[in-house]
Amino acid sequence: MNQLIVDTPRSIDHLPLPRTRRAPAPGRRCIAVGLIGPGRVGRVLLEQIRDARERLAQELGLEIVLRGTAASQVMYIDDGDHFAGARRQGPFATQLDAFAEHVRGDGKAHALLIDCTASSQVVDHYAAWLRSGIHIVTPNKHAGSGPMGRWADIGAAQAQGARFRQEATVGAGLPILHTMRDLLDTGDQLLAVDGMFSGTLAWLCNRFVRGTRFSELVREAHALGYTEPDPRDDLSGMDVARKLVILAREAGWRLSLEHVDVQSLIPAELTQATPAQFLQQLEALDAPMSELLERAHAEGKVLRYVASLRKEGRATVALQAMSTSHAFAHTQLTDNVVQFRTERYKENPLQVQGPGAGPEVTAGGIFADILRIAESLQATSAA
Amino acid sequence: MNQLIVDTPRSIDHLPLPRTRRAPAPGRRCIAVGLIGPGRVGRVLLEQIRDARERLAQELGLEIVLRGTAASQVMYIDDGDHFAGARRQGPFATQLDAFAEHVRGDGKAHALLIDCTASSQVVDHYAAWLRSGIHIVTPNKHAGSGPMGRWADIGAAQAQGARFRQEATVGAGLPILHTMRDLLDTGDQLLAVDGMFSGTLAWLCNRFVRGTRFSELVREAHALGYTEPDPRDDLSGMDVARKLVILAREAGWRLSLEHVDVQSLIPAELTQATPAQFLQQLEALDAPMSELLERAHAEGKVLRYVASLRKEGRATVALQAMSTSHAFAHTQLTDNVVQFRTERYKENPLQVQGPGAGPEVTAGGIFADILRIAESLQATSAA
Ligand SMILES: NC(=O)c1ccc[n+]([C@@H]2O[C@H](COP(=O)([O-])OP(=O)(O)OC[C@H]3O[C@@H](n4cnc5c(N)ncnc54)[C@H](OP(=O)(O)O)[C@@H]3O)[C@@H](O)[C@H]2O)c1
Ligand SMILES: NC(=O)c1ccc[n+]([C@@H]2O[C@H](COP(=O)([O-])OP(=O)(O)OC[C@H]3O[C@@H](n4cnc5c(N)ncnc54)[C@H](OP(=O)(O)O)[C@@H]3O)[C@@H](O)[C@H]2O)c1
Repeated sequence: MNQLIVDTPRSIDHLPLPRTRRAPAPGRRCIAVGLIGPGRVGRVLLEQIRDARERLAQELGLEIVLRGTAASQVMYIDDGDHFAGARRQGPFATQLDAFAEHVRGDGKAHALLIDCTASSQVVDHYAAWLRSGIHIVTPNKHAGSGPMGRWADIGAAQAQGARFRQEATVGAGLPILHTMRDLLDTGDQLLAVDGMFSGTLAWLCNRFVRGTRFSELVREAHALGYTEPDPRDDLSGMDVARKLVILAREAGWRLSLEHVDVQSLIPAELTQATPAQFLQQLEALDAPMSELLERAHAEGKVLRYVASLRKEGRATVALQAMSTSHAFAHTQLTDNVVQFRTERYKENPLQVQGPGAGPEVTAGGIFADILRIAESLQATSAA
Repeated sequence: MNQLIVDTPRSIDHLPLPRTRRAPAPGRRCIAVGLIGPGRVGRVLLEQIRDARERLAQELGLEIVLRGTAASQVMYIDDGDHFAGARRQGPFATQLDAFAEHVRGDGKAHALLIDCTASSQVVDHYAAWLRSGIHIVTPNKHAGSGPMGRWADIGAAQAQGARFRQEATVGAGLPILHTMRDLLDTGDQLLAVDGMFSGTLAWLCNRFVRGTRFSELVREAHALGYTEPDPRDDLSGMDVARKLVILAREAGWRLSLEHVDVQSLIPAELTQATPAQFLQQLEALDAPMSELLERAHAEGKVLRYVASLRKEGRATVALQAMSTSHAFAHTQLTDNVVQFRTERYKENPLQVQGPGAGPEVTAGGIFADILRIAESLQATSAA
C-alpha cells in the first residue's frame, strides 16, 4: 500500500509557545483562599497550588494567597501569604465564621473558601459566606445532594456575585458537570444521563465473572483500600444516588435523595450488623449476586451498577445487565463513565470516562474550579 | 436478593431551580458579535444564539447583540441589534477590516468576531483584531494549524486582554481542548494523547470488516455526505493532522504540520487524478486496504485511523491495528474519541467520546466558547 509519509526529521523543540487561554486579563487578580478540611484531598490540593503559583502569576496574572487552614478541631491562620513563608498562627479552636472573616480580610483581594470536608455542618455556612461575597469551591457532596431548602438558599445567595462550584463531587477531575452545563447553557435539551459513578462498584462489577465469589471480591477491595472502611457505604448505592442528585440539580431539576430509586446490594439481614459482623458475614451476598450474574450471562450480558436520569424525571440507581456491545461493558479498573443524550447528541451520546476518585485527580478538579472562578474576576490590588 | 428500594412516589416537579453557575455577575455585560461565514455551521449558530438570548439575559445578565454577517463576497451590517429587529443594511462588498470596525462600534460593548469560514485569509486578520480588543472564537483550523509565525503572533496579540478560543476545531462540541487546558493549567503533565478525529475515517473503519470492500464503503460514505466532496480530503489524513497540530500547540508545543508523520490512504497513482477520476478508480484502494485488514484480523485486531502525540514530541497519524479490548475498537458510527494520559491519569486515561462533526454540535461548541469569554468580561453599559 502506498503511504504518503512525510519524512522530515522529527526534531520538535519544546520551546514554550504562548498558550491561547494564557492571555492575562489586563491588571492582576489576587485571590485569598482558606482551606477547610486539610485531609487527603485538601493536602494534595495545597501542594498543587503551591507548585503552580509562580506559573499562574506569570501566565495568568493570578496570585493565589493562602490565608489559613481549618480542620474539625483546630485551625491555623496566616497573617500574610502562607505560601510566601508567612508564619502560621495557632492552633486555635476551629470557629468557621471567624475563619471565613479572616480569609476575607480587608476585602481588597477576592476571597474563596475551599471545603474539602465531607461535613454537612460546614455546608450550613455556605449561603451566609456567599452572601458576604466569598466564593466557594468544594468536592463535598452534602451541598448538592442535601436538603432542598438549603440548596435553594445556596443558589439564591449567589445573586450578589459570589460563585459556587462543585465539579469534583461527580467523577472527581473528569469534566462532567461543566460539560453538562455547557450543553444546557447553549440551549441543548437533556434527554437522558447514564453513568457509573462508583469506582468501587465498577471495580467489583469488572472483576465479578463466573467462577468468582462476590464476597471475596468485596474482601479484596476492602483490603486494597478501594472501599470505604465500612463497605456498606459503597454497597448501599447511596453515594451514587447523591451524585445523581447533584447532576439533576445542576440540570435544574428539584430532585432529592428520597426521589431516587436506589437498589442496595446489602442483604436486609446485614443492614443492622456492626462493621465487623458485616465483614464476617459477607457470604450472604454470594447467592443473590451469583444468581443475577448467571441470569445476565445466559443473555450474553454483564452486570454494571448504573445511575440513570430520564427526561421525564425518573432517577434510578441499580445493578443492570448490559450487553457486551455497550460502552459500559468496556470500562476498566475503577473507571467512572457518564453518557449524555441530548437533542444534539441523540443518536450517539457524548461520553466522558476515566478514573473518578483519588486525591490527585480530585484536587485537580477542585483546582480547575478555582481557576474558572479566577478567570471571571475583576482586577484587584494585591492582598 | 434483598433490594432496598426506596418506594416513594416518583413525582418530580421540574420547577426551575437556580442553577449554580447562574449567578449573574453584578452588573450586565453586553457583547456585540459579528459572524464571518454564515454557512452551515454559522447559520445554525445564529439560530442557537437567537433561541438562547432571552434566557441568557435573564440568567447570566448577558446580552448578545448581532451587528452583522460577512460572507466571501458580500456582507450585511446592522445599525442596532439584528436579533431585536434592527434593519440590516447591504449587501456591501465584503471588507473584513471595515466589518470588524463596525462590530467594535463605539467600544462601549465588548466585541467578538466569530469566524465560521475555512479560510486562511480570514485568519491573517486575527492578530490585528485581537490587538484592537476584539475577541475571536472559531471552528476554523487554519489558525491553530497554520504557519507557526502567524500562530505565535495570535498568541502575542492577546496580551492586551482580548481572548481567542477554538474549541470546536477538534471534536466539534466535545470538551477536548479545554479539558486538556484544565489539566495543564492545574499543573498536570501530559504524557500522551491518542485520538480518532475524523468522523469519516471512523465510520469507514467501523464498517470495514471482512467481506466488505473499502472502495464501496467510500462510495457509500460519499453518497451519504459523510465525506468531503473530494474524499481524498479525508483519506489523505491531513485534516486529522491539522487537529493534532492544534492540540499540540494548545499544549504549548511548537509543532507544525510538517513535523507530523502522516499515513495517507490515497494510492500514489491517484493523488493527481481529478475528483471524478478518483471516484471512478476507487478500487485501487481495495487490495492494499484488504491486505491490512487481513493482517489485523489474523492477530484478532481491528483497524483504526489514529492520531498520536507523545511526550517526547513525536506526532503520528496512521492506520493502526488495535486489539478488540482497546476503547477505540468500540466506537460507533462517526464518533470521535480522545484519550489523555498524564501524570495524574497515568494508569487509565481520561477519555472523551462522541459525535465530532455536524452543524448543531459544532455550533454548540462555538457557543460555549463565547459564553466562557463572556463570563470573564467586566460589566458594561448596553450597546
Ligand atoms: N478522596 C477522594 O478520592 C474523593 C473523591 C471525590 C470527592 N471526595 C470528597 O472530598 C472530600 C474530602 O475527602 P478526603 O478523602 O480528603 O477526606 P479526609 O481525608 O477524611 O479529610 C477530611 C478533612 O475534613 C476535616 N473536617 C471534617 N469535619 C470538619 C469540620 N466540621 N470542620 C472542619 N474540618 C472538618 C478533617 O479534619 P480532622 O482531621 O480534624 O477530622 C479532615 O481534615 C470529601 O467530601 C469526599 O467525599 C473525595
Ligand atoms: N460542518 C462541520 O461539521 C464542522 C465541524 C467542525 C469544524 N467545522 C469548521 O467550521 C467552519 C465552517 O464549516 P461549514 O460546514 O459551515 O462551511 P460552509 O457551509 O462551507 O460555510 C463557509 C462559509 O464561509 C464563508 N466564507 C468563505 N471564505 C470567506 C472569506 N474569505 N470571507 C468571508 N466569508 C467566507 C462562505 O461564504 P460564501 O458562501 O460566500 O462562500 C460560507 O458562508 C470550517 O472551518 C469547518 O472546517 C465544521
